[in-house]
Parts: sequence; C-alpha cells; structure tokens
Amino acid sequence: MAISNEAIEKMIDGIGVSIISSVDESGFPNTKAMLPPRRREGLSAFYFTTNTSSMRVKQYQLNNKASLYFFDKRFFRGVMLIGTMEVLTDQMTKDMIWHDGDTMYYPLGVTDPDYCVLKFSAKQMRIYQNFKSDTIDLSGWNV
Amino acid sequence: MAISNEAIEKMIDGIGVSIISSVDESGFPNTKAMLPPRRREGLSAFYFTTNTSSMRVKQYQLNNKASLYFFDKRFFRGVMLIGTMEVLTDQMTKDMIWHDGDTMYYPLGVTDPDYCVLKFSAKQMRIYQNFKSDTIDLSGWNV
Repeated sequence: MAISNEAIEKMIDGIGVSIISSVDESGFPNTKAMLPPRRREGLSAFYFTTNTSSMRVKQYQLNNKASLYFFDKRFFRGVMLIGTMEVLTDQMTKDMIWHDGDTMYYPLGVTDPDYCVLKFSAKQMRIYQNFKSDTIDLSGWNV
Repeated sequence: MAISNEAIEKMIDGIGVSIISSVDESGFPNTKAMLPPRRREGLSAFYFTTNTSSMRVKQYQLNNKASLYFFDKRFFRGVMLIGTMEVLTDQMTKDMIWHDGDTMYYPLGVTDPDYCVLKFSAKQMRIYQNFKSDTIDLSGWNV
C-alpha cells in the first residue's frame, strides 16, 4: 500500500467533516455529514456527540452496521471505514468527550438526556487514491 | 417546508461532489464520493458514469437500495435522497451522457465494456438545515 496509517490519520484529522452512514429499517443506506470526531483512537475507534432523539440513533439501535467516510476533494482521495456503531449513554463516556460550548446543542448540559455519544469501531478500511482502491482488514474480522 | 425544490436543485448543481451509498453483501453501508451527476431530471433521476468492473456496480446489481447525499459545508445544510440505483449498459444511455474527454477513464471510448451508467431514481428526500430536518416523499412510495 502506498499510504501509511499515519498519513491516513493526518488526512482524517485535517478534514472538517465526517460522513457517517447507517442502514435504515427498510434496508436503505442513509448518509449524513457530522462534525469531526471528538476523540479518535488510531484508526480503530471514533467518538461523536449527537442527540439521543435523532433518527440516526434509532437506526443504529436497530442495526449497528455503519461506515465512516472522510474525503479530500482537492486530491480526490478518501478513506472509508466499515464497522459498527454503539450508542453510549453512560455518564463516564458523556463526560469524556464533552466540551464547554456544547450547551448550545444540549441546554441541560453534560447530563442532558438528549446528549449521547456514538462510538464507531472499525473493522475494515478502504482507501481511494489515484483512481485506485485498496482494502485493508483492521481486525481479522472478515466483512 | 422552508426551502423550495428549485433552491434544492440549485444547491445540488453548485456542489462539486456527489456522495453515493450502497449496502454491501454483508449488510454494511458503503459510501463513496463521485463527480457530480452527468444528467439530472428534476429531483427524480440522476445519471453517473462509472466502471462496469467497479465494486459499487457489483453491489448495486445485488442490492439496488441506494442514497445520494449533497451537502454544503459552509452553511452546514444538505439533502439526502433515498431510492434505487440501476446499472445501465445499453448503448443509447451510454451515448446520452458520454463526454469527449471520457476516453481518459474509458480508453475504448463510448462502446468500452468497462464504461456503464448508474441511474438513481429518488423516492424520498430528507433536507437538513438550521440543525433541523424535514422528510419529503417524492413518489407516494413509503420507504
């Protein structure tokens, strides 16, 4: 592979938008732009803040299959991560990624029941660059 | 709804990237950035060029459930269209959206067997703006 994990992580951190996808109750893929992840553990785990009442949370609670996609329009290169999404509502996780300004979205603060955390765990990665793609297994789990 | 179909079409035409999603054979959502559609019929049909040999084509042949997503990062607004994707290989359709420079991607020209057309037909639309969303049925077909 021509690009290192470090270079992929740098690319992800430089992109201001995360594209997250789910599968809805009728089996259709759904896609949405979100803010960058609040926390990232290498290429294996990504944490996002979201509204507990959102459509996306309901979809992931029914079907945890997910993908994350980051792309750099200037170079027409991108990385797709395939894995699973957990909806976390425990206070320790909520505390971990909370930022002061978040009361703008969650008026009741860090204990707001409408504030929750999406944790994405990657299993496979697909890199697109130079009009080619490579698939990399991240966990020995064949998807 | 606060935004007209004309305004949505104008937004779509102003965005240089189409985000297309599929569901793979293991049930995971897959997402990829593509060039803007070559042809658009209102908000109901969108045509793209692609490689017949691509992973995405294989996925749509097995499962035609699809979504298109266009978003405007400056205003954090977007539109998601849910529907079905057809893989078209008939010469009339291939001729219809062919551009001269396409031999860069399909060296054998407009009859290249590795050149085909993806036609997306929309059934439902979801608009995101001002941190709210609206769902609009486009066909009377409930998804």
